Amino acid sequence: MTAIRVVAFGGGHGLSASLRALRHSARQLDLDITAIVTVGDDGGSSGRLRVERDALLPPGDLRQALAALAADNPAHRLTASLMQHRFASMPVPAQAAAHARGPRIERRADRTKDGLAGHAVGNLLLLGLIEMLGDPVAALDHAAEMVGAQGRVLPMALHAVGIEADMVGSDGSLVTVAGQHSVAVADGRVASLRLVPENPPACPEAIAAVRDADWLIFGPGSWYTSVLPHLLVPELAAAIVASPARRLVTLNLSPDRETAGLSTADHLAALHWYLPSLRVDSVLADAKWVGEPEPVRAAARELGAELVLVPVAVADGSPRHDPESLGAALVPVLGATR
Amino acid sequence: MTAIRVVAFGGGHGLSASLRALRHSARQLDLDITAIVTVGDDGGSSGRLRVERDALLPPGDLRQALAALAADNPAHRLTASLMQHRFASMPVPAQAAAHARGPRIERRADRTKDGLAGHAVGNLLLLGLIEMLGDPVAALDHAAEMVGAQGRVLPMALHAVGIEADMVGSDGSLVTVAGQHSVAVADGRVASLRLVPENPPACPEAIAAVRDADWLIFGPGSWYTSVLPHLLVPELAAAIVASPARRLVTLNLSPDRETAGLSTADHLAALHWYLPSLRVDSVLADAKWVGEPEPVRAAARELGAELVLVPVAVADGSPRHDPESLGAALVPVLGATR
Repeated sequence: MTAIRVVAFGGGHGLSASLRALRHSARQLDLDITAIVTVGDDGGSSGRLRVERDALLPPGDLRQALAALAADNPAHRLTASLMQHRFASMPVPAQAAAHARGPRIERRADRTKDGLAGHAVGNLLLLGLIEMLGDPVAALDHAAEMVGAQGRVLPMALHAVGIEADMVGSDGSLVTVAGQHSVAVADGRVASLRLVPENPPACPEAIAAVRDADWLIFGPGSWYTSVLPHLLVPELAAAIVASPARRLVTLNLSPDRETAGLSTADHLAALHWYLPSLRVDSVLADAKWVGEPEPVRAAARELGAELVLVPVAVADGSPRHDPESLGAALVPVLGATR
Repeated sequence: MTAIRVVAFGGGHGLSASLRALRHSARQLDLDITAIVTVGDDGGSSGRLRVERDALLPPGDLRQALAALAADNPAHRLTASLMQHRFASMPVPAQAAAHARGPRIERRADRTKDGLAGHAVGNLLLLGLIEMLGDPVAALDHAAEMVGAQGRVLPMALHAVGIEADMVGSDGSLVTVAGQHSVAVADGRVASLRLVPENPPACPEAIAAVRDADWLIFGPGSWYTSVLPHLLVPELAAAIVASPARRLVTLNLSPDRETAGLSTADHLAALHWYLPSLRVDSVLADAKWVGEPEPVRAAARELGAELVLVPVAVADGSPRHDPESLGAALVPVLGATR
């Protein structure tokens, strides 16, 4: 029996939750996992690497996906932790301490800037690998090997993109917000979302993974900045629609800042809005968090999907997916293909 | 038959040459290799990490030793190349290109500094590991595992040290030069060399390796800044003298800037000067480069050593050791212990 080929779309924490869940499912099912990751991040360490070093891809979300897929042995876990390790800002007293501990080192004016603060080691490692190899897929495959990744991590496009939204303010005015980070934290409702440029080159290996997949999984995650962007890469969207794979949407447990005012049903409607020909087979939601299920069930039906209500949240009452519960919930869904 | 335990002392390119040679010897002999590395570097990337981030150890020489010991398979070689990859300075036009390729990203004044330029990826990786684990030996052991190192890399002391020299100028005046980098490039003759602080804590694992060694190997390398510093760490010097191991000195092929004016025999005399109780068994030199052998033979004899003249230089006539020839020359010497 060959493995069930699963492609998970997303970025950031939502994709990590999805991948960690799939790792749990893989204890019961033979899964071949591919993550396809947004490349719109322009905040924090990734944003700085785009501006300061012309980084081909923002590495942060790719790094998170690699860490989520890291093998469960001590050495690979330690390498994954190293990739996630973020250089703290050095307090001024600590800089002075260098002189106390070691010897006197002449301090030059141009050397007192702390250029590493805020960067995750894994971002610098991915940046270096991509610079060195020139090929982002070869770089990601090697980084995956370094953490013994139980799956492959690919970018949704071959270079960084911008995310731009027209947003409606509380007074009804329409403003354009540019940049993934700004869209994610802006007040107001997203009226229209687009990529800049509008037709970035898709990653051929990602297209092939979609074509050959048994399942495509969308969400959870920041809907506008991590889930929908994939549907805006024309070549990738076409591959998603053309793929014989079944399609699953894992809904968020609660709205976040960028989807404030959007109902759960609206999340599903947004998928249809941005990719009208998208058909979905299953929509997974948590009964405790989904609220009144009927509108959600109706919105799922509009996509051709059945709504599956399962407990997938963490036990402490916060709106986060529990990888183990989500992984267990995915087993009967993904296993039903055979 | 147990392995022959070899400890190689040094730093930078000289130590790399020694370790690469030992890798060749290890094809014929069962060798257990430990590198003990100077921690005085205050130039370049390592120096910046000491000043800007209070780095516990300057990582550059440690990284070089790890790369020299990396396993010979494609994956580990690629990780080693990544560690050696140095971020170039971004030309201003390339920074502008980020905007052309991707979308408009707001550039903030404090984000236009290129804080990564000049850093080797492996330096940042070692810095992150040491920060994360707090234990430099655990960090080095993990980094060694990442490159499949055929040996262990340890620091000569548990924190960075300064190297300071009193130097005699051409006019006979005595000046104090502070800092490894400054000592290495200063004009004049070193009259006296010391560490700051004078009694740094030795690395217990290094002390144990010296105690249990079959062979201790000194050089090649920058004599004042890479070879002699080990003899100035009191605890390490005591372990070197007390060890039952045999001792080998591999001489440089030609003087470098810091030893201009020093004869080959003077190099050996310097070992005696800084550690009078040091006894040596073999001194390895290249007949083509050693010049008149008698003074060298006499200086070796002063240390209790026999002079072994073998061809160990590269074929192109430049004064660099050829790892394969040096490795072949080491086989009968190291193998003679049994």
